[in-house]
Amino acid sequence: MAAAVVWRRGAAWLRSCRANRELPGVPRARGCAGSREVVPTCERYAVRRLPFARLADGDVAFFERLMPGRVITGEEEVKPFNVDWLKSVRGCSQLVLKPQTTAEVSQILRYCHERNLAVNPQGGNTGLVGGSVPVFDEIILSTALMNQIISFDKVSGILVCQAGCVLESLSEYLEEQGFIMPLDLGAKGSCHIGGNVATNAGGLRLLRYGSLRGTVLGLQVVLADGSALDCLTSLRKDNTGYDLKQLFIGSEGTLGVITAVSILCPQRPKAVNVAFLGCQSFAKVLETFTTCRAMLGEILSAYEFMDEKCMELVETHLKLSSPVADSPFYVLIETSGSNSTHDEEKLHNFLEQAMASGLVTDGTVATDEKKIKVLWSLRERITEALTHEGYVYKYDISLPVGKLYDLVTDMRARLGQSAKNVVGYGHLGDGNLHLNITAESYSHSLLEAIEPFVYEWTARCSGSISAEHGLGFKKRHFIHYSKPHEAVLLMQQFKAMLDPKGILNPYKTLPSAPDRSTC
Amino acid sequence: MAAAVVWRRGAAWLRSCRANRELPGVPRARGCAGSREVVPTCERYAVRRLPFARLADGDVAFFERLMPGRVITGEEEVKPFNVDWLKSVRGCSQLVLKPQTTAEVSQILRYCHERNLAVNPQGGNTGLVGGSVPVFDEIILSTALMNQIISFDKVSGILVCQAGCVLESLSEYLEEQGFIMPLDLGAKGSCHIGGNVATNAGGLRLLRYGSLRGTVLGLQVVLADGSALDCLTSLRKDNTGYDLKQLFIGSEGTLGVITAVSILCPQRPKAVNVAFLGCQSFAKVLETFTTCRAMLGEILSAYEFMDEKCMELVETHLKLSSPVADSPFYVLIETSGSNSTHDEEKLHNFLEQAMASGLVTDGTVATDEKKIKVLWSLRERITEALTHEGYVYKYDISLPVGKLYDLVTDMRARLGQSAKNVVGYGHLGDGNLHLNITAESYSHSLLEAIEPFVYEWTARCSGSISAEHGLGFKKRHFIHYSKPHEAVLLMQQFKAMLDPKGILNPYKTLPSAPDRSTC
Repeated sequence: MAAAVVWRRGAAWLRSCRANRELPGVPRARGCAGSREVVPTCERYAVRRLPFARLADGDVAFFERLMPGRVITGEEEVKPFNVDWLKSVRGCSQLVLKPQTTAEVSQILRYCHERNLAVNPQGGNTGLVGGSVPVFDEIILSTALMNQIISFDKVSGILVCQAGCVLESLSEYLEEQGFIMPLDLGAKGSCHIGGNVATNAGGLRLLRYGSLRGTVLGLQVVLADGSALDCLTSLRKDNTGYDLKQLFIGSEGTLGVITAVSILCPQRPKAVNVAFLGCQSFAKVLETFTTCRAMLGEILSAYEFMDEKCMELVETHLKLSSPVADSPFYVLIETSGSNSTHDEEKLHNFLEQAMASGLVTDGTVATDEKKIKVLWSLRERITEALTHEGYVYKYDISLPVGKLYDLVTDMRARLGQSAKNVVGYGHLGDGNLHLNITAESYSHSLLEAIEPFVYEWTARCSGSISAEHGLGFKKRHFIHYSKPHEAVLLMQQFKAMLDPKGILNPYKTLPSAPDRSTC
Repeated sequence: MAAAVVWRRGAAWLRSCRANRELPGVPRARGCAGSREVVPTCERYAVRRLPFARLADGDVAFFERLMPGRVITGEEEVKPFNVDWLKSVRGCSQLVLKPQTTAEVSQILRYCHERNLAVNPQGGNTGLVGGSVPVFDEIILSTALMNQIISFDKVSGILVCQAGCVLESLSEYLEEQGFIMPLDLGAKGSCHIGGNVATNAGGLRLLRYGSLRGTVLGLQVVLADGSALDCLTSLRKDNTGYDLKQLFIGSEGTLGVITAVSILCPQRPKAVNVAFLGCQSFAKVLETFTTCRAMLGEILSAYEFMDEKCMELVETHLKLSSPVADSPFYVLIETSGSNSTHDEEKLHNFLEQAMASGLVTDGTVATDEKKIKVLWSLRERITEALTHEGYVYKYDISLPVGKLYDLVTDMRARLGQSAKNVVGYGHLGDGNLHLNITAESYSHSLLEAIEPFVYEWTARCSGSISAEHGLGFKKRHFIHYSKPHEAVLLMQQFKAMLDPKGILNPYKTLPSAPDRSTC
């Protein structure tokens, strides 16, 4: 094993190296040239346009008066807002609105509600399930100009800001104050905090700081009819009635438009360490997790895993070399704490124990920023490596942690030679598996061998068919694999109550109600 | 300053000394003798019975057939379930049901829904706002016999159990497995986990482990019409549709009856330390908080404060002596971590810094279990000491942490000689103030000097008039001080949608809808 080298520094570098990362290998949609080849969603998928009103000249004139200079109508200018980050879906909107205030959002929705015009709320457009772009001609309501920080309290660590603040900008602002955002994402350079909340984003810090369900303290939301709901409190405790804001967290813009967020931010850790280890079986990966959680305790901030196939692909396609060889599984462990000496000692003790008991057969600990970067790259660039293989079938699954890798093993056995590779990696500490299957090119028969098998397998283990990405447009019809019929019916009742005309982000999150797909 | 003594031990004692604690000075209602003097709520308060059906012999016969031997009808036997823990409210129920399964709860509610019989769900009956006992003759649905642990996963730390499990029993079970519950309450010896979730209990560990909004992963709930909603997943990440369970957390049994809970449990800390310090001003209490949060970081698990009046009362009435004297404010700090040597060093460094910079003028650190107990008693027995003063007006307020003590100061100035004492203490780390005003006896004019001033003051600071106790029966009409009109209307819509007949815990949480108070 490489010697565990004492390493001291702040966490600034690690964060900045994650910043501005686009999805590797998938160019971002920019202007008409970039989106030309994307087939419109309404052509590719069997979905019918609901009977919303069509945009008229009078509508555009109304919005021009309401917010002069912040109404985008040119076909070329609107195109980037119509195509998703993956360039996998494409809407046909003719209008983008860029409000600056909650009052403007309220006026927009009141007007659209009266006119029966459908609206697609859009943050940084970094979603992966087609939830952030229109399906047909929905008006795009962009939060891009709602990017003001409203307040930050250094005593409580509570930040209040508009929904369109870019996550990375907030992180930079907070770091100057000695704090960090409680979430961190690959898309932080583009994604908006309002979008993060609307999709209940998970990300890299969930293991340590918990989900947005706990850290979001308040929201300002505009409902479908334009009425504003002000629950923008900055209190850790408030038991006065039902916690309405929770319904909007993770509702993907289908119940209301989030216009401002109050969020509890942790102190910036003074010390960060990263270890990369090899394990001889998945059982040992699990046991290593249990051991490291016990010994690292409060400083553990990430526990990621990948199988040897992932490592092969990263080495083959990206020419990255692993510091740890010949292991069926690899683990990346990050610690974040307030005292570097203490943290290094805890990590050292854990590594001694893990090696002595045979849980880990080889490993290395980062000694400087460059090495840390290399270690994180091995895990973070798997997605990019996979794109070099041809067509990739991607699944984002939550499972009871003990069964996490069984799905990969079963899928590999099931597909045999018909798949090029079946690989598994992900956020083991959160029970979140990224299952990826590659083939030379798209094959319908291979898809049929994977689905619904993958969803049925997940359902049998009481897992989730969408751990952190949401359902959006692409997965909404699979909700029944993770939620009982009664729950889906209740969700549809909430939708009907809060948005009776269904104008907010239609065709997303919930399967079409039987009486709503007949237009 | 007393020397900071190195102290090593597990956290077992600290937890056990909190166990089985009843509200000091307030005898628990037991049988008819204990509750004889409590005036029935329907006599004391101006509230009208809603037009629910009256219990008939046929109803009791139905329940006897459904769950023989678990139907309580005798007047004396029912009495303890009719009176709250504080002996402040009393219902007139004639029937207590003790189901053992979700299916039985479902059958009970289906029957009651059809018959239009009102139901009062009851856990350990430890609530402080009159939410857990009937107002009139509602049938009491006790979760006392739903006390089975369903599963515990040592890898993920996820516990699944029935709603009637006593918090302390769960804690003891988990400690054997090396884990703890993410919440700890004074009432842990009696309160049920289902009741904790239904009231979104805060407690002593919130600062460290966050609220139940983040730690509760799944719920099983029976709705008013008897239909069961199974959202009892055990996944840290699940973004498949709206998070319905959140609506039931903190809804005080008014939207559904929680029958089972899935909850994420932290590792048991290997080391716990307690420091008790004196500060010369509230500004220094705040600055000490900021400093200790920065220096103790991830091991800080409690930051409590009390003013000198609290200390005087504890010394006078309970003969407890403070190890730290002559300070306008006192602070209790607890650390919980995985390495006692590291934790003691962090605490030592913080105390050196706090003393050197004049934030803290005197202090002590616990050296053994007895001393720890004495330090915690100084903070925990304030409530008991207050009851010796005569009548106590009690308020549980959330405020932006910087303004936490201003309310005490303003109230003291406002009341002058008309109050005996105006004291403030509480969970500073959570922004939670316990404001208590004492007088020789109850005085309506003093009450009018306090209310609505205290609520208006709180509302001006965007605070909460109920931080952790909920609204229950007693505070429901004050909700408008903390929630805008639109939010309350929306809550009433949710209630009407989920419980159209209003049979679940009527007269609680929400103010009466205008069209519902005319019977």
